[in-house]
Amino acid sequence: MKLVRFLIDNVVYRGRLEADRIIPLDGTGAEQSYSLADVRLLAPVSPTKVVAIGLNYRDHAEEVRLPIPEEPLLFIKPPSSVIGPEEPILMPPQSARVDYEAELAVVIGKQARRVPRDRAAEHILGYTCLNDVTARDLQKRDGQWTRAKGFDTFCPIGPWVETEVDPSDLAIELYLNGERKQASRTSMLIFPVDRLVEFVSSVMTLEPGDIIATGTTSGIGPMKAGDSVEVRIEGIGSLNNPVNTVNA
Amino acid sequence: MKLVRFLIDNVVYRGRLEADRIIPLDGTGAEQSYSLADVRLLAPVSPTKVVAIGLNYRDHAEEVRLPIPEEPLLFIKPPSSVIGPEEPILMPPQSARVDYEAELAVVIGKQARRVPRDRAAEHILGYTCLNDVTARDLQKRDGQWTRAKGFDTFCPIGPWVETEVDPSDLAIELYLNGERKQASRTSMLIFPVDRLVEFVSSVMTLEPGDIIATGTTSGIGPMKAGDSVEVRIEGIGSLNNPVNTVNA
Repeated sequence: MKLVRFLIDNVVYRGRLEADRIIPLDGTGAEQSYSLADVRLLAPVSPTKVVAIGLNYRDHAEEVRLPIPEEPLLFIKPPSSVIGPEEPILMPPQSARVDYEAELAVVIGKQARRVPRDRAAEHILGYTCLNDVTARDLQKRDGQWTRAKGFDTFCPIGPWVETEVDPSDLAIELYLNGERKQASRTSMLIFPVDRLVEFVSSVMTLEPGDIIATGTTSGIGPMKAGDSVEVRIEGIGSLNNPVNTVNA
Repeated sequence: MKLVRFLIDNVVYRGRLEADRIIPLDGTGAEQSYSLADVRLLAPVSPTKVVAIGLNYRDHAEEVRLPIPEEPLLFIKPPSSVIGPEEPILMPPQSARVDYEAELAVVIGKQARRVPRDRAAEHILGYTCLNDVTARDLQKRDGQWTRAKGFDTFCPIGPWVETEVDPSDLAIELYLNGERKQASRTSMLIFPVDRLVEFVSSVMTLEPGDIIATGTTSGIGPMKAGDSVEVRIEGIGSLNNPVNTVNA
């Protein structure tokens, strides 16, 4: 099932997508179905936090010349950084180099606190695409990654939560202006999804709608205003965002 | 004015404290005043994020042997780490050394996005005490500070938001089991409150209830189960928390 959040007359609804029709979920107040073309999709969930994993593909750790972590390396992207499909990523004036990073996002369905690996699936609602937008120059300058990865609009997610896909071996790609820049498979993750749920939930309680961003592969590179960026994951879908300047 | 959140019969109310009486705020549904002794105070706000500043007192940067930053150094403590007065700080099994850090917390009152320094005050609701609890061993091991500072219960705040205090030169102290361990003044902050609001809001939009933790002074040290820890700030009040193990 593909779960969406969408906007009709400035009201937010939740629904499921069937072919190109959106059927509102029970109890959401909407009474008819809509054509996908007639609604504006929002970020499919509204997380209290996005917990992201650094250096979780070997080839990316090598390209940024950082050691492969012995345990998952955590950082947080704040709720204020989250945007939905087709919303513009805004280039902040503080940075001279802002990169895309295609990532598989795990969406939590049920509160998770100290969940063992073999019960992780019970706490997962599904999966979506995520672009871990990063001001690469500030990441290096600060040491801590929070500012570089925490600007408003730096966490596009969507277009929907796919609840029925097996995340263990999916093709993941990034396209910049239609040209493929990143390509890998989720089978290359150093720490797989169930291990990440175990690890993160042993530190902090995950709430429904919270996200674990599983890390990016090699091929990172910069974006500029006017670009169009797409994260594509097999079995899930495509997340497209234009790139603008802050005051565009 | 001292703004509180409190619990009566499992319902959360907001109020203001006058002497030892709590008067519910208009529109909150409560109809009488309460004695402070009869209610359970909660964390005075429910932030979407706590943006914390690293190394913002010169003496603390020296004691942890880290360079003084040229710009404020940001990290985030998640909403799941926030607890209120008298709630236990839980020692996680992953760490062998968990430290207290007394900090002045700025509470946002009005959404703040790219706010210039001279207008920062318009976006501040007031100030409270904060303990930036830190697993010191994990902070060093990870490099990124998110895990070390992000465990559940690692962000006690309270006991209330003081809306009428000038934050520029307040005594700030930490007591462990009644013994004073940290003592400084907020006039020693490298980056003062208005500069922090400007800097953080130039990166990420701050929402009402969000917190900026302004950094800690020297004298940091470990806590253990059975301890009692108090952050005391002149003109604001005292935040007290017991220390327990996770499964206590």
